[in-house]
Amino acid sequence: MTKSSRTGRRAGDSGTREAILEAARSQFAENGYDGATIRAIAAAAGVDPALVHHYYGTKERLFAAAMQFPFVPSEVITAALAPSARRPHESLGTHLVRTALTLWDSTEVRGAFQGLLRSALTSDQAAAMLREFVTQAILQPLASAAGGIDPMSAAFRASLIGSQMLGLALARYVLQFGPVAAASPEQLAAAIGPTIDRYLTGNIAALAQDG
Amino acid sequence: MTKSSRTGRRAGDSGTREAILEAARSQFAENGYDGATIRAIAAAAGVDPALVHHYYGTKERLFAAAMQFPFVPSEVITAALAPSARRPHESLGTHLVRTALTLWDSTEVRGAFQGLLRSALTSDQAAAMLREFVTQAILQPLASAAGGIDPMSAAFRASLIGSQMLGLALARYVLQFGPVAAASPEQLAAAIGPTIDRYLTGNIAALAQDG
Repeated sequence: MTKSSRTGRRAGDSGTREAILEAARSQFAENGYDGATIRAIAAAAGVDPALVHHYYGTKERLFAAAMQFPFVPSEVITAALAPSARRPHESLGTHLVRTALTLWDSTEVRGAFQGLLRSALTSDQAAAMLREFVTQAILQPLASAAGGIDPMSAAFRASLIGSQMLGLALARYVLQFGPVAAASPEQLAAAIGPTIDRYLTGNIAALAQDG
Repeated sequence: MTKSSRTGRRAGDSGTREAILEAARSQFAENGYDGATIRAIAAAAGVDPALVHHYYGTKERLFAAAMQFPFVPSEVITAALAPSARRPHESLGTHLVRTALTLWDSTEVRGAFQGLLRSALTSDQAAAMLREFVTQAILQPLASAAGGIDPMSAAFRASLIGSQMLGLALARYVLQFGPVAAASPEQLAAAIGPTIDRYLTGNIAALAQDG
């Protein structure tokens, strides 16, 4: 309200943006992350697709805005995967855990995570939407990082990483298990980083088996 | 109905049991797992505490019955921790993961897990109840298993194990990430078992740090 009262232009902009985000939320919920298109979202909001692209760029950025994420997951992961982002002598897994926890410790992420998880538990549709989004925006960049070593198994490796990071978020923020809730990002990075390193590039016996 | 129609005695039993379970559910929800007592549950159900003990034995068994778990967690974990339960050359972590997944793959557990998680996400009270229960019935037996090596850090080690196993359940049953949902218990045990071994007894750098 304070923002939009300054100029008529901004009031119009913010009404249009809100209509787009509203349309995005219902299109993602109805058709999943993979099924929703910027074209259909624009049509539902009664605007030109070019305007949606102008405001939000990509489908992932639009999803992040609609879900009120304070950041765009794949951009954070891509930045974190860059060798220059790491401290000297720090493993990639340790760096990824510390980066994730430092971000997640902000209150906004906690709320967004709880909201997403709550809807995923309440409806199969919401679970599918979240699965598709996590696969595209989070697991695929991780799979590429693991892919140099062992392309066939990259998706399995990425899902293992997803299971540990998801469980860490649940234990720290939702259930608040004493020691995991109280530990610093540094401590958890030191404890869990080697797990992520092994899932990314280590020797995983299961990958030698069938199926 | 079919059961209770056979004798009057059984009809009375099952009514009393249902009243006890009902009272247990509301006492656990109101006062948490730690705060609820068999005495208070008996009073709320209008029966003698000795009858509750007679039917359910321990508070944990009563909780498991009230939440419709098809097994009693600490009993499964205690049995799984026995060296004789393991296959030759199998690590404890690998055995724990395979045992958990084989149990969880039954539909009943999936539903109970989703229900508990849903209520934990909806109310802080339910989250506290679940945290207290998991700490007492699951993390403490695991902490004892880790305690022989490093007593000070047993609770931290148990929480790390909890985070990985919780995340595995969420990824496999709720979000159904492709490769983790499709893999067999054997494959996941081979992939995740070494993580659990390291959390149980491995060298964890964080434990050498402050706080």
